[in-house]
Amino acid sequence: MESGLGPVSTPGALPYYVAFSQLLGLTVVAMTGAWLGLYRGGIAWEGTLQFNVHPLCMVIGMIFLQGDALLVYRVFRKEAKRTTKALHGLLHVFAFIIALVGLVAVFDYHKKKSYADLYSLHSWFGILVFVLYFVQWFVGFSFFLFPGASFSLRSRYRPQHIFFGATIFLLSVGTALLGLKEALLFKLGSQYSTFQPEGVLANVLGLLLACFGVTVLYILAQADWKRPPQAEEQALSMDFKTLTEGDSPSSQ
Amino acid sequence: MESGLGPVSTPGALPYYVAFSQLLGLTVVAMTGAWLGLYRGGIAWEGTLQFNVHPLCMVIGMIFLQGDALLVYRVFRKEAKRTTKALHGLLHVFAFIIALVGLVAVFDYHKKKSYADLYSLHSWFGILVFVLYFVQWFVGFSFFLFPGASFSLRSRYRPQHIFFGATIFLLSVGTALLGLKEALLFKLGSQYSTFQPEGVLANVLGLLLACFGVTVLYILAQADWKRPPQAEEQALSMDFKTLTEGDSPSSQ
Repeated sequence: MESGLGPVSTPGALPYYVAFSQLLGLTVVAMTGAWLGLYRGGIAWEGTLQFNVHPLCMVIGMIFLQGDALLVYRVFRKEAKRTTKALHGLLHVFAFIIALVGLVAVFDYHKKKSYADLYSLHSWFGILVFVLYFVQWFVGFSFFLFPGASFSLRSRYRPQHIFFGATIFLLSVGTALLGLKEALLFKLGSQYSTFQPEGVLANVLGLLLACFGVTVLYILAQADWKRPPQAEEQALSMDFKTLTEGDSPSSQ
Repeated sequence: MESGLGPVSTPGALPYYVAFSQLLGLTVVAMTGAWLGLYRGGIAWEGTLQFNVHPLCMVIGMIFLQGDALLVYRVFRKEAKRTTKALHGLLHVFAFIIALVGLVAVFDYHKKKSYADLYSLHSWFGILVFVLYFVQWFVGFSFFLFPGASFSLRSRYRPQHIFFGATIFLLSVGTALLGLKEALLFKLGSQYSTFQPEGVLANVLGLLLACFGVTVLYILAQADWKRPPQAEEQALSMDFKTLTEGDSPSSQ
């Protein structure tokens, strides 16, 4: 399970799985755009079209970019740890800002239309996941990017950060599926059962969203696809280990 | 990550997490029953009440029993491997049969009412997950319970079986959430936004369903909570390993 040191090699199948995940992710973003363009009149920051900013931003931010941020440690294997970390944090910042725009869009739209907020299962999940996402980013930043945290503390927090990161990502996919379903039922109603083109397109989009989630999870779950520690990181860890009392570092 | 041999110890926190998962699982089943009883007229195999057999059976089978089947290797740590395996397989059989009754209920109800089948995102996910569940059980049985498969083959298939088992379970939770959302929107429609008691109860049920999924996943993800191989299994593995060429066995 532990990779040896020395020249960093990339597992043979990993690039194909990463490429497949990117193909799925981009297809999901394009298909969300196509759905909104073809059946919902496109996107604007006014009138009913303002609502459409919400699904597009959430899919780009909370699905595609968040998923890619999780894959950073699998893709950038030879770069310095600091660079990989910075890219992981930065992708999450982009994801967060784009998702925030998507949230402002829907709350502003509800306000203008005098619709109630936060009554549906989708909205309960959505607001919970967004808060958890922010907390996870903030705690992750404090432990891993801020220089103050000890090596021992980082080692103990790392598995929790990875588990909750993957969980928040999966909950984001689930929330997107609930939102898609809500949007379909509100508009199509009983027409949904007559296999309208919009319903079929959105169902396929839903399946592809889940496929993207499963593919990212599969890449993360392969123990021997994890980024191996590089020679200088390992030496540094050993120095810290002798300085700080605590658990031995788990593999990354 | 590998536990040593000798007396099998149970990690200190594991029983509390398992107890919490069971509390959540039973609450979810009870709350599904309460929802159907309070707001949907209860359960019967005739008329509109036949539909209600579907959510109850699916939650008992595909959520609670399936989740518990995944936890068997964490809970029964000291029993013979064969006993634990048999229990894992048997719980999945119960889950499968109860879910099958739930599926027959909804298809039969649709037929009697002349409703269309398999048009919604929930139904697409549902049928896909059910087929995957059957395939996973069948392949798992062939590899692990049927005596024919070699040790090397089992070692290589085990991580895939675990990953896809967890994935199918998570997809089942997602499918249940989509079904719950569908049932709410079909009945409540725009009343959903006025915080009707049924809507609030069902939203809480949805959150608890997700909590059960996350708790089971958390227990499965803790590397040092895995069932350690017992002395005689380890010795047997070594014998097989020298007999069969192949990968070294991964930890259980």
